[in-house]
Amino acid sequence: MNPKRYLPILQWLPGYGREPLTRDLLAAVIVTIMLIPQSLAYAMLAGLPPETGLYASIVPLVVYALFGTSRTLAVGPVAVVSLMTAAAVGQIAPQGSPEYLGAALVLALMSGLMLTVMGVARLGFLANFLSHPVISGFITASGLIIAASQLKHVLGVEASGHHLVALLASLAGSLAEVNAPTLAIGLGVLAFLLIARRWLTPTLRRLGVPARPAEMLTKAAPILAVAVTTLATWGMGLDANGVAVVGSVPAGLPPLTLPGFDSGLWRQLFVAALLISIVGFVESVSVGQTLAAKRRQRIDPNQELIGLGTSNIAASFTGGMPVTGGFARSVVNFDAGAETPAAGAFTALGIGLAALLLTPLIAYLPIATLAATIIVAVLSLVDLPAIKRTWDYSRSDAAAMLATILVTMGHGVESGITVGVGLSLALHLYRTSRPHSAVVGRVPGTEHFRNVQRHEVETDEHLSILRVDEGLYFANARYLEDTVMELAARQPGLAHIVLACQAVNVIDASALESLEAINARLKDADVTLHLAEVKGPVMDRLHNTALCRELTGQVFLSTFDAWRALHDERDATQLPSASTSRSTARQAAP
Amino acid sequence: MNPKRYLPILQWLPGYGREPLTRDLLAAVIVTIMLIPQSLAYAMLAGLPPETGLYASIVPLVVYALFGTSRTLAVGPVAVVSLMTAAAVGQIAPQGSPEYLGAALVLALMSGLMLTVMGVARLGFLANFLSHPVISGFITASGLIIAASQLKHVLGVEASGHHLVALLASLAGSLAEVNAPTLAIGLGVLAFLLIARRWLTPTLRRLGVPARPAEMLTKAAPILAVAVTTLATWGMGLDANGVAVVGSVPAGLPPLTLPGFDSGLWRQLFVAALLISIVGFVESVSVGQTLAAKRRQRIDPNQELIGLGTSNIAASFTGGMPVTGGFARSVVNFDAGAETPAAGAFTALGIGLAALLLTPLIAYLPIATLAATIIVAVLSLVDLPAIKRTWDYSRSDAAAMLATILVTMGHGVESGITVGVGLSLALHLYRTSRPHSAVVGRVPGTEHFRNVQRHEVETDEHLSILRVDEGLYFANARYLEDTVMELAARQPGLAHIVLACQAVNVIDASALESLEAINARLKDADVTLHLAEVKGPVMDRLHNTALCRELTGQVFLSTFDAWRALHDERDATQLPSASTSRSTARQAAP
Repeated sequence: MNPKRYLPILQWLPGYGREPLTRDLLAAVIVTIMLIPQSLAYAMLAGLPPETGLYASIVPLVVYALFGTSRTLAVGPVAVVSLMTAAAVGQIAPQGSPEYLGAALVLALMSGLMLTVMGVARLGFLANFLSHPVISGFITASGLIIAASQLKHVLGVEASGHHLVALLASLAGSLAEVNAPTLAIGLGVLAFLLIARRWLTPTLRRLGVPARPAEMLTKAAPILAVAVTTLATWGMGLDANGVAVVGSVPAGLPPLTLPGFDSGLWRQLFVAALLISIVGFVESVSVGQTLAAKRRQRIDPNQELIGLGTSNIAASFTGGMPVTGGFARSVVNFDAGAETPAAGAFTALGIGLAALLLTPLIAYLPIATLAATIIVAVLSLVDLPAIKRTWDYSRSDAAAMLATILVTMGHGVESGITVGVGLSLALHLYRTSRPHSAVVGRVPGTEHFRNVQRHEVETDEHLSILRVDEGLYFANARYLEDTVMELAARQPGLAHIVLACQAVNVIDASALESLEAINARLKDADVTLHLAEVKGPVMDRLHNTALCRELTGQVFLSTFDAWRALHDERDATQLPSASTSRSTARQAAP
Repeated sequence: MNPKRYLPILQWLPGYGREPLTRDLLAAVIVTIMLIPQSLAYAMLAGLPPETGLYASIVPLVVYALFGTSRTLAVGPVAVVSLMTAAAVGQIAPQGSPEYLGAALVLALMSGLMLTVMGVARLGFLANFLSHPVISGFITASGLIIAASQLKHVLGVEASGHHLVALLASLAGSLAEVNAPTLAIGLGVLAFLLIARRWLTPTLRRLGVPARPAEMLTKAAPILAVAVTTLATWGMGLDANGVAVVGSVPAGLPPLTLPGFDSGLWRQLFVAALLISIVGFVESVSVGQTLAAKRRQRIDPNQELIGLGTSNIAASFTGGMPVTGGFARSVVNFDAGAETPAAGAFTALGIGLAALLLTPLIAYLPIATLAATIIVAVLSLVDLPAIKRTWDYSRSDAAAMLATILVTMGHGVESGITVGVGLSLALHLYRTSRPHSAVVGRVPGTEHFRNVQRHEVETDEHLSILRVDEGLYFANARYLEDTVMELAARQPGLAHIVLACQAVNVIDASALESLEAINARLKDADVTLHLAEVKGPVMDRLHNTALCRELTGQVFLSTFDAWRALHDERDATQLPSASTSRSTARQAAP
């Protein structure tokens, strides 16, 4: 066992010097400023006290710096995982109760254990169950749900519901109670953030600020909104006028917490924890790979699972919530020049200082400000043109995407992702269950064979050559049986069928049995089955099987060999026995 | 719409004459004799009154004759489906209660509707979810459970449990109460049937009986056992000595029944009905295809779904139970010379006569006799050598098979089949998630390219050609990203990567996005991405995508074209810009 593989910190720490230290420190400062409002906001989105978000951005970051393989990934609470946390934990206990907090810790622990086990068992491939259209649809739907769920804070009304339809209905019912100062703050921050996102960088550039600082300042716009609205609320006493504020947040470092071990609770949260783990991993690993590639670095997906898993375990023991690698903050970290995971550890220090010293200052922070921050952040996740793009490219992928979006919005996050995964699996099976195959004939005068329906080729009424363009496995084994037996039933004069296998990369046990059945059935019908162009590794496995022992025909190296042997044979002998049986068969099949 | 497709009876009835009539009648007589004890026995196995089995062998057979496409399939209660019925209905109500009977009717109706809908919607491909090893394992485990469940009747004791472990434990606890006359009958019938199966045909042949009648007589052995033990029980008054008998069975034609429409019950039975439908369909269609092929006939799997579906609907309205095409009885039907589905209709007549006239005679039929009949029938389903055979051929298929067997035996039929299907899907995804790919080089002096690890080929440190031997879809999209980016990270001098796509039959939306990500990441790393040998249909879909618009390199017709263009280009210009960026990249990636 190579310790460097399981402790990637050993790869970079020994060579760590002054230059990367400076760059990492600078990146950490910028990410800290960005992460403070985000942490508070995503904790609120998950229905947890604001300090939970800060706690989840301290120890987990240090742990990821030890075990993670991405140099620049920034770990912490993210929008989609926070929404999933709220949906899962909300079914266990009401928001604000100690059970709700406890369940969030258990969720983080379970998700951490699952990710770590998957990493150690090298099960990263399980994330492949989530196809791109399903993820994209899920994130779009989540973004819309999150944005809708924050509208109530911008309006200053009460509303609830874990899926879009319920939420909007609830909101519509309480529009009469809108709080004017809250709405002013909420819309003000929304407008400011949207304008900042679009025009701040170009304006600063025009004012002579260099490109990178201009972009960094734009990313720091939320902290400005936080500072201004907090001051305004405090100065004008808006909290007395119905503006909801964060209120008193305990100052101090993360507490030591012990997640509960109630087996009933664990069972109830199992599916949610699995889905959160996989969604979080997929999001994180995509970001990590994109950033690593820009510097020709590599991340190891299975070690990433361990990195994220241990971070979540750490979160569960330090009063946190489920975390993963976030897109926006990782890009900021990368752009700010972070060179090693030490930047993450320094960010943790920064957030730790904030938790110690700054919490009294945010008592007057309006919740509407955080809500507006969340809305602007998640609307960038919503990718409606992707639906059209996917539809144009592939109807079946678009169907999976649409189903994911509609079910997520209408029935909740867990159902949405489950239906999406189920449907994309079913559609994949459907697609490969009807593999492309073609009856081929000889291009006259050559050794080449082409589809008889597309080319002028030589054929032989006693011989049919079927080329199969797909690996043979359980999903298409039966289709192969159908195709071959239809060929035999359609062509009464047939004496030989050759399967040309140049594109067959695998024959699993189901396909093997189907081939055995085909062989036996063709034998009953007096048709001989031959194989041609079987690939080396496939042939190696076939050698000791009943198929090879009982094959009525031969295994030819090339299709042309098969053609020469079977076409000539008939010319020479006229196959008397086969002709007799063919006439019997013709009689029996009217 | 072609009525002949949906009413296959129109294909054969117009030409029906005296000769097929004679053959069909003879086959029907033989199948009727075989089916009477089987129907009683499988009804008992399903926990239903014996007459239910007879009812399920009357109207459903006539309906199948109208809608089914197999000429010789014999429909009725079968062992595995009866076991699944008992497991499903047993969770709703205790055996013997009216709710139990009602739930069995609902199960037949739901299964019938599901099959019919799947047939009309041409969803027969869904049966492909069941791989051969999973079916084989499931049937083996079911056979063992059924045999074990019948042991109590042979011993004359009480025992219960829907899976093997519980059953055997329960049996062991009641061994003290064995009833001697019951045991004598049970063991006697068991021995007689086993001996008959092995030696009756050869003995009869030696006595001068021709082959076919000898085989038919052997198949009729169970009815002989029924007759003899019934007479013995009646004559010796064994029922007074503790021998359980069938008891009074109402004489008469099937009653009209109306399955209940309680939505809660339907929801509870949904999964069971789906599994019963799929297992029954798979069993039936395999038998049908095997027999059809012997006469070069065809069956249409989607129309078969309609045939089986309508049969089950008929069963639910005529006091029956879930039915499907049985293996043993279909073979007997075929061997006895049945030529058209009319044989099935005549069999229904025969069973109808039996239900009207023979029921008083079976009051003294010992249950031990039926149990012994079942045990002998299902033990032929148990195929333990298949485990070894599958293991030798493919470890992953064997794993799915073993999991199915163990979970079915230890936890019940529904869990067993669900775990088997889930595991074979996961293993398939795992297998295709790591497609075979190879970096290839040029065979010197030719236009051919071969794996660099297996052949002496020309390579170029600035150019890497990767051949991918599998369609690209969501399960392997991420692996492709990993493989390509690892190639780029490993070879610092690299300027071009060519993907040779001659074996890529499909690129789904996930793989398309992965290729776009690969292209963008390689661009960041100053590596150009090219494609070669993209198949026509795949290229057609790629034309209007972002990949084609943003591809940093070109699409070459052949790998050799790519080699010539990229290999020569470097020789001519030394690519100054690429070399510069390469040295930067080397610096960044320590």
